[in-house]
Amino acid sequence: MQTMSSSSMQQCIDDCLNCYRTCLQTAMNHCLEAGGKHTEPEHFRLMTTCAEICRTAAGFMLSSSPLHGPVCAACAEVCRACAQSCEQIGQMDECVQACRTCMDSCRAMADGIDMGNFTGQARSTSTLQDRLPM
Amino acid sequence: MQTMSSSSMQQCIDDCLNCYRTCLQTAMNHCLEAGGKHTEPEHFRLMTTCAEICRTAAGFMLSSSPLHGPVCAACAEVCRACAQSCEQIGQMDECVQACRTCMDSCRAMADGIDMGNFTGQARSTSTLQDRLPM
Amino acid sequence: MQTMSSSSMQQCIDDCLNCYRTCLQTAMNHCLEAGGKHTEPEHFRLMTTCAEICRTAAGFMLSSSPLHGPVCAACAEVCRACAQSCEQIGQMDECVQACRTCMDSCRAMADGIDMGNFTGQARSTSTLQDRLPM
Amino acid sequence: MQTMSSSSMQQCIDDCLNCYRTCLQTAMNHCLEAGGKHTEPEHFRLMTTCAEICRTAAGFMLSSSPLHGPVCAACAEVCRACAQSCEQIGQMDECVQACRTCMDSCRAMADGIDMGNFTGQARSTSTLQDRLPM
Repeated sequence: MQTMSSSSMQQCIDDCLNCYRTCLQTAMNHCLEAGGKHTEPEHFRLMTTCAEICRTAAGFMLSSSPLHGPVCAACAEVCRACAQSCEQIGQMDECVQACRTCMDSCRAMADGIDMGNFTGQARSTSTLQDRLPM
Repeated sequence: MQTMSSSSMQQCIDDCLNCYRTCLQTAMNHCLEAGGKHTEPEHFRLMTTCAEICRTAAGFMLSSSPLHGPVCAACAEVCRACAQSCEQIGQMDECVQACRTCMDSCRAMADGIDMGNFTGQARSTSTLQDRLPM
Repeated sequence: MQTMSSSSMQQCIDDCLNCYRTCLQTAMNHCLEAGGKHTEPEHFRLMTTCAEICRTAAGFMLSSSPLHGPVCAACAEVCRACAQSCEQIGQMDECVQACRTCMDSCRAMADGIDMGNFTGQARSTSTLQDRLPM
Repeated sequence: MQTMSSSSMQQCIDDCLNCYRTCLQTAMNHCLEAGGKHTEPEHFRLMTTCAEICRTAAGFMLSSSPLHGPVCAACAEVCRACAQSCEQIGQMDECVQACRTCMDSCRAMADGIDMGNFTGQARSTSTLQDRLPM
């Protein structure tokens, strides 16, 4: 992982903290106030635990932990499930987008793929997702 | 994971919170005060990030997250590395033991193996570790 | 704070981690599954943020932070509000008890009062609460 | 606190997450690698616990907790001590700045002062600090 460019890791930290913020704020405001399917246990648990693992993955990278790989892999898996759940419920586009962007970054970080050439808009396109072994 | 006995999960939560507590308290007191190899970056990073992932894994199980599996798997991996680093440095027996117990519990939780029959002293013996696909 | 007996601090860490565990597990299981007033935004926010500040207060004490006082004071205030909210809703006795025990410990820790003589059953009686300047 | 403008709270969340990130990354990289006074227990504990309370204060505000006030007050106090410690050690300007900006935001949030007119460069000047009852 020593060859991972520092800018890729800083981008992944950004994506994790953004996903943490979006998921927690949406769960504790939009979901709690809307109720109904928004507070259905499985969906709500995905929202808050997605926030938690994103925050933890960011912490591993900020700490230069040699074991950020498995944590980023777990984070990508939780983000994928959270994005899917938000998409099924509908009208949660900001959350879907934050989860997908974070999933892509974390998946690449876990696999040691340098995302340096894929920053910006391209990062969350299906083209990149197709390239990744998820 | 629905067939996992509740007592196994409660035991794994106990083991994670105990490992969180032991690693953080040891790092921030014993290691910082001793200095030398105890504050060597790679060792110290393992100690504090091990505390962090243990706390997060406990949070996933307390929240009944359907995705506690990959998080427990990551936790087991970090605990293994932390136990090994503590063992190399020496005189960190309490930390080594807490990490190994947590590693065993989390590995079994990730694999969906019910540890119900292995509670107590047996949980951290090499016999059990040999049985687990680590 | 250097005169605070170590056993008082270890007891306060225990009380914080127990309150963290009780509040998070109750919110994410009992409350989410019951719905109704249990997922009413203000109550639910108190439950999850109480878990969060308890975890943080424990972290400050585990780290021997010289500034655990103001964090324990904030924790006591959140625990008090959470206990009150749980009591109004009813049938949340375990949570009420965990919050009150943690509130007493944290309040004493913030004030530099050694709870060493009040451990055990006596800690959460109204007698003790009356003695504390809350 | 209901009259606090939403933009002030979003700014305070930004400042807390920025301070979390700066303190944790600096402690786990710059400080651990430099050693000496950088890993002196009291300084290092301030760095990591400052990161922790900043993260928690952000979480309270993201969750719209009615009790973010006392948590922001505790955060401001820890940030002040951390900024002072970093300044004494020297060559930690980014950390000093992040702590002071966060301290100002959190102090105003705790006091219910709307920082809306003080955003931008002015927020961390001594003029503003003089106005705040710290």
